[in-house]
Amino acid sequence: MVATPDWVKKAVFYQIFPDRFAIGHHQAIAVAQQPKLEPWETPLTVQGYKGGNLWGVIEQLDYLQELGITALYLTPIFQSACNHRYHTHDYYQVDPLLGGNEALQALLTAVHEREMKVVLDGVFNHASRGFYFFNDILENGPHSPWLDWFYIEDWPLSAYDGSLPANYRGWVDLRALPQFNHDNPDVREYLMRVGEYWIAQGIDGWRLDVPDCVKAEGFWAEFRRRVKAINPEAYIVGEIWCDASPWLGGDQFDGVMNYRFTEPTVAFTIGDRLQKEHLRGEEYRPYPALNADAYGEKISQLLQRHPWEIQLTQLNLLNSHDTARLLTLANGDRPSVNLALLLMFTFPGAPCVYYGDEVGLAGGADPDCRRVFPAKTDWDLDCWEFYRQLIALRHRYQCLQLGDYKILVTAGMGYAFQRQYGDETLIIAVNAGDNVTEISLSPEILDLDKIERIESIFTTDSQIEIQQTPSVLSVTMPPQSGKIFRFGHQE
Amino acid sequence: MVATPDWVKKAVFYQIFPDRFAIGHHQAIAVAQQPKLEPWETPLTVQGYKGGNLWGVIEQLDYLQELGITALYLTPIFQSACNHRYHTHDYYQVDPLLGGNEALQALLTAVHEREMKVVLDGVFNHASRGFYFFNDILENGPHSPWLDWFYIEDWPLSAYDGSLPANYRGWVDLRALPQFNHDNPDVREYLMRVGEYWIAQGIDGWRLDVPDCVKAEGFWAEFRRRVKAINPEAYIVGEIWCDASPWLGGDQFDGVMNYRFTEPTVAFTIGDRLQKEHLRGEEYRPYPALNADAYGEKISQLLQRHPWEIQLTQLNLLNSHDTARLLTLANGDRPSVNLALLLMFTFPGAPCVYYGDEVGLAGGADPDCRRVFPAKTDWDLDCWEFYRQLIALRHRYQCLQLGDYKILVTAGMGYAFQRQYGDETLIIAVNAGDNVTEISLSPEILDLDKIERIESIFTTDSQIEIQQTPSVLSVTMPPQSGKIFRFGHQE
Repeated sequence: MVATPDWVKKAVFYQIFPDRFAIGHHQAIAVAQQPKLEPWETPLTVQGYKGGNLWGVIEQLDYLQELGITALYLTPIFQSACNHRYHTHDYYQVDPLLGGNEALQALLTAVHEREMKVVLDGVFNHASRGFYFFNDILENGPHSPWLDWFYIEDWPLSAYDGSLPANYRGWVDLRALPQFNHDNPDVREYLMRVGEYWIAQGIDGWRLDVPDCVKAEGFWAEFRRRVKAINPEAYIVGEIWCDASPWLGGDQFDGVMNYRFTEPTVAFTIGDRLQKEHLRGEEYRPYPALNADAYGEKISQLLQRHPWEIQLTQLNLLNSHDTARLLTLANGDRPSVNLALLLMFTFPGAPCVYYGDEVGLAGGADPDCRRVFPAKTDWDLDCWEFYRQLIALRHRYQCLQLGDYKILVTAGMGYAFQRQYGDETLIIAVNAGDNVTEISLSPEILDLDKIERIESIFTTDSQIEIQQTPSVLSVTMPPQSGKIFRFGHQE
Repeated sequence: MVATPDWVKKAVFYQIFPDRFAIGHHQAIAVAQQPKLEPWETPLTVQGYKGGNLWGVIEQLDYLQELGITALYLTPIFQSACNHRYHTHDYYQVDPLLGGNEALQALLTAVHEREMKVVLDGVFNHASRGFYFFNDILENGPHSPWLDWFYIEDWPLSAYDGSLPANYRGWVDLRALPQFNHDNPDVREYLMRVGEYWIAQGIDGWRLDVPDCVKAEGFWAEFRRRVKAINPEAYIVGEIWCDASPWLGGDQFDGVMNYRFTEPTVAFTIGDRLQKEHLRGEEYRPYPALNADAYGEKISQLLQRHPWEIQLTQLNLLNSHDTARLLTLANGDRPSVNLALLLMFTFPGAPCVYYGDEVGLAGGADPDCRRVFPAKTDWDLDCWEFYRQLIALRHRYQCLQLGDYKILVTAGMGYAFQRQYGDETLIIAVNAGDNVTEISLSPEILDLDKIERIESIFTTDSQIEIQQTPSVLSVTMPPQSGKIFRFGHQE
């Protein structure tokens, strides 16, 4: 029997890249008061630090609550000699620039007082060149006691000089990221204890970085058992870009970063507007364009692929620190982005807002997608309001959190589906095309005797027309429009 | 008014090089159970780890107490990618090979239950290549926020490739040891907090590594104020090889590693037996040979150089992890080493036994002086008993801890002095030469009306003859012999 955390099913997440979200005024940095940071307003650089910190996150909790956010996912916060902090230097220390362990404890307290949650990013596949156990190998060569913690292939190692062979294994051949040997029981135990430690300290879950790269037998099943033994409601979500079925049987992750939802949703809503120059690599393929039928097919496949309990705790997203922002990918076309948002906030699984998206922050591929959170004068307030309303609906209607997902109509670029939970039913209709589309819903499609009483609860376009008879509901949708209506058959 | 810790005046220290002293059976390593260590019995290598740990120290406390030890000085124990651990990687973590912070807490508890003390080695002049703030510079180059923590001279840095200029300042030009910029207030504060932290955790003092290299104005005076504010009885002892007067005015250190005592003492007792091939550098000059007169002159100068309160809390030693062991320097000549020991244990200031010396462990210059503590079958039990007796005397006679030091006779290689405290007086007589010497003490020299009642309390040689009349005390001393007698004028 698959069990996943109930709170995640009802959560709306907000992903924060801590260096770029907010600088706290309360207490910037516990240890070092005068680090040489890049000015907040200047264009970012690949290696520079802007100095956002956890005190800043605490100060923005009012803002996030007003938006409707109930859970934070922070990209890595442990001590790391890198602004994205995926190069862990110390798994037991929060980065001093972020405020250190003291700031995390303050954040956990503040977040939990608001009945919100915090999920941290666990980078357990690889470490960094400065990580103690690897650094010992750099310092002592074959005399190091920790050779078996990594994959040493020859001597000497060349950690910093790219003109010589590294002679050790790095993640995707990056010498900055020495790959752990998870078959070493000491390494395994070390990482398990890190996982346990921070759960015991009060975090509400782990987002796991590239967990598919960890090949050791039973590693993630053990991780789940040990983490859940401390907090059965802890959320474990993997970063898996490909088919995640091997990890989503219920014994490992509660969900994944659901790029498999993102891809067809972007392909359907953004279509040929997509600016391919902002794509990187082959992992993420939000094109070619899809029509409604093809979109429905992809969504059906996705929903059939994993247990329903897992579907409800997937982490749904439209972009992240690893992709261009959708607004930029869509060449600034707000209506198509809004349709994608409508589809995300009405999809099973927890929606996740990438910091700044809600105020219209743009950005191409990494690192451009990691710009600082803009000043209020630069906010797109319509965008913010759009997010706020969708998030409010997500919280208001249990069927959006827990209800069945049933595709009703796929016609050209017109797509309609139903979310139903108990007596509560919502219909979501979308026209992602450039032409007017009419979506017709019969009592048979809706599994009703006759069509009664409908109520519009959200619309992207006031021009959408609804015509209703007892035998048909017909929605005439202008280009790039979407609507949610409540369809009561409970009376 | 100069104030130093009273407990140090009465202490007998034992210096431990933790990797080589003892492997605990209780719990070898908290995190990593299977490090690849060098076998304990095989010859040591420059870079290898033997795996001694703090659990091992705890298990040897009975042994140390039987010897009479009351305080431990541990060479560095913080996380470091180096077997001597002078390359600090993390000032807040005890090295995992040593048992981590858990083992230190257990050691502190066990030591304090026995009313013993622990002094740690603070390496605050430089860090290591893996130290987070320096590692960030290696990783991010000019973008690092921490450039001002060190002395960066040009780009790129070459931390590991010795064929290129390092482009940053290292202690004695070692690129493994990046030099802190103590003029940066953040660095200063960081190090001050480390000093405070471990005192608050319960350690009893700091031995400071190369503190003369820290040039920042007022650094050690502030360090003293902040440490003593937490524990006024904390011991602060500097590693100063040259004239330590600038640091021993009472506002900085309570004492130094008293190589200025070692040098003449070795020159007098070992003399031309000294094997110069075991000497390194110019800092430590225990030769040429001295006669008693020259020895007395050096000792007088030393005792006049610093306040008496400081003299009583100097750390007196005959060798350390930084020198060849005296036994090896003396070409194995036990009698001359024993005379040096007699002079040390009767000198003002706390004597310090370097682990293994008490069982006759040999060893040339670094790293040979860091051999593992030998198996019991290899112990020199006479040596051990010699130490035990001298330490017992040190504890029994307050005059050895607190009494005035008065040179009575210097004649050829014959040397006699008096320690007096209240009504308690001891006379120590030494013949460091290869010929029989007679030392004569008159009532005038002894500041007495007449000579009465003497009692031998320790002797290295049963052939020493004492002839006594009311007007003269005459001691006929065979070559390389020494004696302590109690000279009571209290009755």
